[in-house]
Amino acid sequence: MKKPFLGCAYYPEDWDEDQIDFDISMMKKAGITCARIAEFAWRKMEPSRGHYDFGWLHNVVDKLAAADISVVMGTPTACPPIWLIKEYPDVAELGPNGVRKSHGGRRHCCSNNPHYLEASDAIVTALAKEFGNDPNVIGWQIDNEIYSWGTGCVCEHCIERFHKALEKKYGSIENLNARWNLNLFSQAYDSFDEIPAAVNAWHNPHIHMEWIVSNREAQIDFVHRQAVILRKYTKAPIGTDMMPVNGEDYEKMNECLDIAMFNHYNEPSNLPGLPFWYNFIRTVRDTPFWNTETATTWNGSEAITQFLKPEGFCRVNSWIPIALGGEANMYWLWRQHWAGHELIHGAVLYPDGKPMHTFGEIQQTAAEFEKASDFITSTKVDTEVAIQFTSKNWNMFECQSVIANYGYLDGPSDTMHALTPLGICPDVIGARASLDKYKVIFSRSMLTLEDGDMPERLEKWVRDGGVWVVGPMTDIRDSVGAHYKKSATGMTERLTGVDMLHTIPTDGKYLAAEWTDGSGELKFGRWTEVYSEGGNILARITKGHSELVGKSVIASFDCGKGKIILCGAMLDRDDLTKLAKLALDMAGIKQRKVEGKLTVVPRKGDGMDGLVLCELGYENASVELDRPMTDILTGKSYPAGRLCVEPYGIYVLE
Amino acid sequence: MKKPFLGCAYYPEDWDEDQIDFDISMMKKAGITCARIAEFAWRKMEPSRGHYDFGWLHNVVDKLAAADISVVMGTPTACPPIWLIKEYPDVAELGPNGVRKSHGGRRHCCSNNPHYLEASDAIVTALAKEFGNDPNVIGWQIDNEIYSWGTGCVCEHCIERFHKALEKKYGSIENLNARWNLNLFSQAYDSFDEIPAAVNAWHNPHIHMEWIVSNREAQIDFVHRQAVILRKYTKAPIGTDMMPVNGEDYEKMNECLDIAMFNHYNEPSNLPGLPFWYNFIRTVRDTPFWNTETATTWNGSEAITQFLKPEGFCRVNSWIPIALGGEANMYWLWRQHWAGHELIHGAVLYPDGKPMHTFGEIQQTAAEFEKASDFITSTKVDTEVAIQFTSKNWNMFECQSVIANYGYLDGPSDTMHALTPLGICPDVIGARASLDKYKVIFSRSMLTLEDGDMPERLEKWVRDGGVWVVGPMTDIRDSVGAHYKKSATGMTERLTGVDMLHTIPTDGKYLAAEWTDGSGELKFGRWTEVYSEGGNILARITKGHSELVGKSVIASFDCGKGKIILCGAMLDRDDLTKLAKLALDMAGIKQRKVEGKLTVVPRKGDGMDGLVLCELGYENASVELDRPMTDILTGKSYPAGRLCVEPYGIYVLE
Amino acid sequence: MKKPFLGCAYYPEDWDEDQIDFDISMMKKAGITCARIAEFAWRKMEPSRGHYDFGWLHNVVDKLAAADISVVMGTPTACPPIWLIKEYPDVAELGPNGVRKSHGGRRHCCSNNPHYLEASDAIVTALAKEFGNDPNVIGWQIDNEIYSWGTGCVCEHCIERFHKALEKKYGSIENLNARWNLNLFSQAYDSFDEIPAAVNAWHNPHIHMEWIVSNREAQIDFVHRQAVILRKYTKAPIGTDMMPVNGEDYEKMNECLDIAMFNHYNEPSNLPGLPFWYNFIRTVRDTPFWNTETATTWNGSEAITQFLKPEGFCRVNSWIPIALGGEANMYWLWRQHWAGHELIHGAVLYPDGKPMHTFGEIQQTAAEFEKASDFITSTKVDTEVAIQFTSKNWNMFECQSVIANYGYLDGPSDTMHALTPLGICPDVIGARASLDKYKVIFSRSMLTLEDGDMPERLEKWVRDGGVWVVGPMTDIRDSVGAHYKKSATGMTERLTGVDMLHTIPTDGKYLAAEWTDGSGELKFGRWTEVYSEGGNILARITKGHSELVGKSVIASFDCGKGKIILCGAMLDRDDLTKLAKLALDMAGIKQRKVEGKLTVVPRKGDGMDGLVLCELGYENASVELDRPMTDILTGKSYPAGRLCVEPYGIYVLE
Repeated sequence: MKKPFLGCAYYPEDWDEDQIDFDISMMKKAGITCARIAEFAWRKMEPSRGHYDFGWLHNVVDKLAAADISVVMGTPTACPPIWLIKEYPDVAELGPNGVRKSHGGRRHCCSNNPHYLEASDAIVTALAKEFGNDPNVIGWQIDNEIYSWGTGCVCEHCIERFHKALEKKYGSIENLNARWNLNLFSQAYDSFDEIPAAVNAWHNPHIHMEWIVSNREAQIDFVHRQAVILRKYTKAPIGTDMMPVNGEDYEKMNECLDIAMFNHYNEPSNLPGLPFWYNFIRTVRDTPFWNTETATTWNGSEAITQFLKPEGFCRVNSWIPIALGGEANMYWLWRQHWAGHELIHGAVLYPDGKPMHTFGEIQQTAAEFEKASDFITSTKVDTEVAIQFTSKNWNMFECQSVIANYGYLDGPSDTMHALTPLGICPDVIGARASLDKYKVIFSRSMLTLEDGDMPERLEKWVRDGGVWVVGPMTDIRDSVGAHYKKSATGMTERLTGVDMLHTIPTDGKYLAAEWTDGSGELKFGRWTEVYSEGGNILARITKGHSELVGKSVIASFDCGKGKIILCGAMLDRDDLTKLAKLALDMAGIKQRKVEGKLTVVPRKGDGMDGLVLCELGYENASVELDRPMTDILTGKSYPAGRLCVEPYGIYVLE
Repeated sequence: MKKPFLGCAYYPEDWDEDQIDFDISMMKKAGITCARIAEFAWRKMEPSRGHYDFGWLHNVVDKLAAADISVVMGTPTACPPIWLIKEYPDVAELGPNGVRKSHGGRRHCCSNNPHYLEASDAIVTALAKEFGNDPNVIGWQIDNEIYSWGTGCVCEHCIERFHKALEKKYGSIENLNARWNLNLFSQAYDSFDEIPAAVNAWHNPHIHMEWIVSNREAQIDFVHRQAVILRKYTKAPIGTDMMPVNGEDYEKMNECLDIAMFNHYNEPSNLPGLPFWYNFIRTVRDTPFWNTETATTWNGSEAITQFLKPEGFCRVNSWIPIALGGEANMYWLWRQHWAGHELIHGAVLYPDGKPMHTFGEIQQTAAEFEKASDFITSTKVDTEVAIQFTSKNWNMFECQSVIANYGYLDGPSDTMHALTPLGICPDVIGARASLDKYKVIFSRSMLTLEDGDMPERLEKWVRDGGVWVVGPMTDIRDSVGAHYKKSATGMTERLTGVDMLHTIPTDGKYLAAEWTDGSGELKFGRWTEVYSEGGNILARITKGHSELVGKSVIASFDCGKGKIILCGAMLDRDDLTKLAKLALDMAGIKQRKVEGKLTVVPRKGDGMDGLVLCELGYENASVELDRPMTDILTGKSYPAGRLCVEPYGIYVLE
Repeated sequence: MKKPFLGCAYYPEDWDEDQIDFDISMMKKAGITCARIAEFAWRKMEPSRGHYDFGWLHNVVDKLAAADISVVMGTPTACPPIWLIKEYPDVAELGPNGVRKSHGGRRHCCSNNPHYLEASDAIVTALAKEFGNDPNVIGWQIDNEIYSWGTGCVCEHCIERFHKALEKKYGSIENLNARWNLNLFSQAYDSFDEIPAAVNAWHNPHIHMEWIVSNREAQIDFVHRQAVILRKYTKAPIGTDMMPVNGEDYEKMNECLDIAMFNHYNEPSNLPGLPFWYNFIRTVRDTPFWNTETATTWNGSEAITQFLKPEGFCRVNSWIPIALGGEANMYWLWRQHWAGHELIHGAVLYPDGKPMHTFGEIQQTAAEFEKASDFITSTKVDTEVAIQFTSKNWNMFECQSVIANYGYLDGPSDTMHALTPLGICPDVIGARASLDKYKVIFSRSMLTLEDGDMPERLEKWVRDGGVWVVGPMTDIRDSVGAHYKKSATGMTERLTGVDMLHTIPTDGKYLAAEWTDGSGELKFGRWTEVYSEGGNILARITKGHSELVGKSVIASFDCGKGKIILCGAMLDRDDLTKLAKLALDMAGIKQRKVEGKLTVVPRKGDGMDGLVLCELGYENASVELDRPMTDILTGKSYPAGRLCVEPYGIYVLE
């Protein structure tokens, strides 16, 4: 198996059989080493209930094998055939308006419906039996982009699941009423089965969040159920391809899977933000992740919403996942659909078999993957800095965004961007990640820290010597999203000894603050926390309401062997870089000077040590090298000092 | 009882009982003299049907009494407990899509549903029996912010009520068909019970308006039904807290109540518009109104949509209702909810008991209310000018806004703003208000004047010597919103002897007009009425279609001992001030020169006479005093002449 | 009968009978020669099922006859009386949310419902019997503005019709599955009756398009069904008044009708685009069309959305249809509704009978129609240039707009505007139009050419000597909207011998092209097609991805005796005019130099020959006359050379 993989999604079921040989010959020409197949082909596998036909699929897998192209096999459960809907109309999702989804799209069935589960189990079992031992199947993908849309299904099975989840979590209805403050609005329930789906009302954020979580956990259970079946028949690694949609719990979803799989579709404008997701996906499992989908050109369904991108985009877009810890980059899709829902989406080939204009970039990428193969497979991303980012907080923001139109992503991702000029490539970690390897952790917009034993682990970590940058909008809600009643925070008032006096939404008017080191005014974001006097105060309010002027907004504190920096201001990127530098210096972490939108990825392995550079802003950038290095891709050597990087430039430096 | 009241909404049912003493001690510290309680606490009072528990509430009322804090008791009918919904699922409102609202918010029940009414009667009776004679309960608030949302409930009871209301109003179906012109589109009905709720169709504006009115009257009946019950058990004054939402009929709603109650949530940007509502609420009853809700800081539900306001906002915002004729200002809420729907809304205290940054302003306000108490309680707002503003016209605009995106509020409120530079604080009066005390009345955007005996009263009033400024968009529809067929207007063509030749929507292009006194061009609004030659013409069309050029757009007429000024142009504020000055001069009303967004409120009482000034634009302002005056709040004296007022300044001048 | 007709919509059923004489006397004063009546008056004709009353209508028709005003009689089927809905509630349209439309608007019944059809047949029969031989009824209008809104009705009858239509078109379900590529997403159906209405799912564009077409064809069948009935009783011409809404199939709708009828409501801003529709409507039948509705002033329903227009607008707006091949212009409406849904819409008279400000323009128009009558009735629009514009492509764009927010209309209408400076007034032709008379045809945004025998006819036409300007976005989909699989195009790759290498969405960045004649850079639109080397290359890519640079984007080719110009760039109007000039020169078509938004209409007849000029931009314009001409309207003569035309000027030059 050639790693890193360069792959593509291949739908032979949509084409005449005589096209297979042509397609495979073109894949070889492009440098494709891996094909994702079968994910939507349930009907072709099981044209009527219990009658299977896998011959066509064996044919494809075998021909790919003969061409030395590996296969990732998808379970086709996102798209049940019409015979299932016809036999059991209630397998279709029920909307809050009382109308069920109709057959015609995908993922229109309810993952809690017993008839759907029965049919899903059967096709997964049959497929696994057929291909579980096929040597050319190097991995399994469960379903496709599974998540809950909108309010989710409100059928009886989903409601029942919701009630059971609540009962398990809260124990008694009295406890639920108490935790959610349901004396308010006389909302309290007398039994779990009275609780409605959180639709058709102005619901409180706590029930709203639990409803979302219940819907999302149903999808996780559904995936895990398939994994259990697959493991009976195969030893190949298993995953499910997820997208950066809403507050899916990536950690929990991947808990009993082997490989984190990720789909993304970015444009020049938001490409610089893409590393955030890879920095996160990388930490979800200890095996290298697979980027299972990305576009070669533009994406689009019935209408195109992306346009022609500059030369080099396809290549750098293919390289980022590899640079940041993945071992596969796969295109969606191989050959543009000749008809159907997504007939306008870019691909490697046009429907008539002509190559798209990025074909040359794909060939180049394939060649480069081969050149860098040793380095990539022998090293891992090396970092001592983490940014917290959890599913629970995403969901909490969705249900109570604190200030209108402020999303959860902004806080953690701004922190990543603030680290870029310092040459730091942080891990982005979920609630269950071990903290041991980190010297600095940033917790911004972490409304609640109460997620399992995270509070205890954080406290121990900081007391043992960590540098913890906290806030704003952090530690101010309990595990269900309620305010604390005896303190403004869950733990930081206790750990620092200062009070959080005020939590203030601001639009920048009527408030100003300055760094106490004389370096000037802070730019104000939309939320400010104000502390009582104490610690080493780094910034104070200088203008505004007389009650606020002079008060602390940023301060640092000793805590055991560690440090806590409370940051009450929603800093812009420059100020945040300043604060981050301060924290990195406290922790003794070496930095590298970087200019521009250059992602610098230090990688280390047995005796190997280097940097991968990816320019993502389509502009010139630079990094300071601390020793002479050689680019594996070109063989060129560079002296220590400033290395200039051209737009969309990629360097694998040893 | 200390008046004016400084109060707050207090929800002890949402907190541990051990917090009551703390809360009360902090209220004393803040200067709070009055607490609104119980409005959503039905379940705590009646945990299961017919089983009441008022002990906890007596405890609170008694502790407040001990602290000399009066109580306004709310009936909790906005939030029925789950047992009612469970017993009778049809108490929940039915939406036009056939789906009922689910338990979880508030005001989700149908006010026409007999089972809801039965349960509501019972809890109101029980509560009234308990607290009807409690000396610390100084007033009763029925339900909370009751109004119809969107299309309203479409259940059988609501439809039946609609049919009965139509039958009562129109007598026969033939008459209804005739009044609504239902030959059009073959829409005519053969019996009242065929008439649908005005949803799911492109409905004519007449049925649409009646449907809205029927929904709104259901809420009025519901409130009056509670008032009847309460009166059996209490002598304390009764009200219901309303908001400036849509075309609620404030006059009718308050007809059998004692105190008009009003909730509002303003920001710096729209604070200057707030007096309009108080000028209106003041006229609804002859007793001083209560401002039952306003924010201390920002409001917000799951997300904050308002931001930090400048210092002084809380104080001036608390003072406006008092200046303009109220005797209570109450904050919503005392202590920020620790959880639930509105956990982000500003309050006096944070959930952990710390005071918010406006605490000092609240204390100052409390002290000032005490200082000014004699003056405020002994004087009333003194004015001879009125602006008409009626529920029927609001509803008519909602159903046929004449020109797209033009709302009813603009006309009357622009008139108020045009009076500000003249130092006039007008009454804003509904359809039933007596006209006797006024020398000048402005009727702008009064599509119809046909509301009870208003046309007769207006004609008598003007013939007896009033100065009536009419138009534009006034008197051009009959009582159901139809055009007149024999004249363009209901009465003004007859009273003035000139014809309204044209009614013209304009976007300012292709039309111009000038004052005939040589003072220049008018700025054009979005609607213009053109008159035939006659009267004393004040402005004429000067550019545009040849059919229009030279024609009259503003003219004055004698009418009995009075005057009518027809204004066909939608004047901007400067031109409107000019026209208003002309009318005030005709009526011999003295004016005061005011600069800036300064509300100047003349107040008069037994031997007392003074001005209250409130600066609302957060900028410098001034007023010309015609005699030396002394500020009750500071004791400072000011000579006659120009008094400069600082941003958010408040003066109580005697 | 006086032609061209100047008419109006007249609703005597909405007024007291004593108004008829007054209305008719005012019509005479205005110069009205024709009245459209009865279109919504079903209930007045048939107050209860089977009981007819036509006396009132005879009275009106006879009085109009006495005044020499002709009548166009409308069938009233858009507005069934309440008794029908009451007897059969299922006649009302069923929405996708399961809720039926309620009585109160118009066109709320399902045109596939057998009970509605039965009642419709009966009233049409009764009306036709009464007035079929009335000599004053000069034409019949079936229903009014009939089309499918939104998703259309989803009742069992509509679904059944859909299935039958699919079965007829595709023959077998296997064929349908294959044509729509329904292996994709396992969507394939086992029988036609499993196919849902294309709602409640992310449906593929092919099913979506067929669903739309099925809904639209139901309306066509409904109209044709009425035509069959009418023909039994009348010899007067029959039509149905349509609007430029969505992708209605005007050709098919008018197939068994006699006169194309068209309603439009334009404003100064979009008046220059109006000729496009008349150029199209003119070609639908060989008889002159009738403009059945347009506003005298502003339109509006409960609220006005248009404003005062400049003097002359009403006149030029009335003249355009006549200039462009119509023989009637009718106003909607005669007298502003005194109540009801559209009580704010402009008219000839106000409700109280006063004339609106455009009355003089209407009188002038009437006089001019009379003056120009001989010329207009003896000549026809004369052109050798056509632009293709088909219902199928409109629907295909609606279901797969290729690039987001790009509509079908833009391509063909931009082509018309590009011809204006050349003095060319093109025909706009549908899929069934004969091509024989044209020397140049433009096919832009014609996604598919597969519509009946169009491909064969186009090929023959070009081989016989036509000059065909093709693209972009043309010939790239098959008849159901799928990509071709063996070629990028249906016929142009074959006819030109070059390949369409790339189809590229662009936002103008990262791409540039230049004319090969040295005349500079092209402005880029949002879609570009790139060809292989071949033909006479007119423009090439000059900047962009290295794979694209140097490639052809515009090229011309010989094809038999004709020429094909492939245009892969979405040219702006200036570049398009340049390309059009090139094509016109190839075809030897004489051009006239025109400046400004002047529509120049050459008309020819027996021994007559002239030009009608209409200035539509409210600005100065000019045209080069090639001989001295005389204006029939004023009698003035103009020498050869430049004729300047004033804003909204109209000239009928002989």
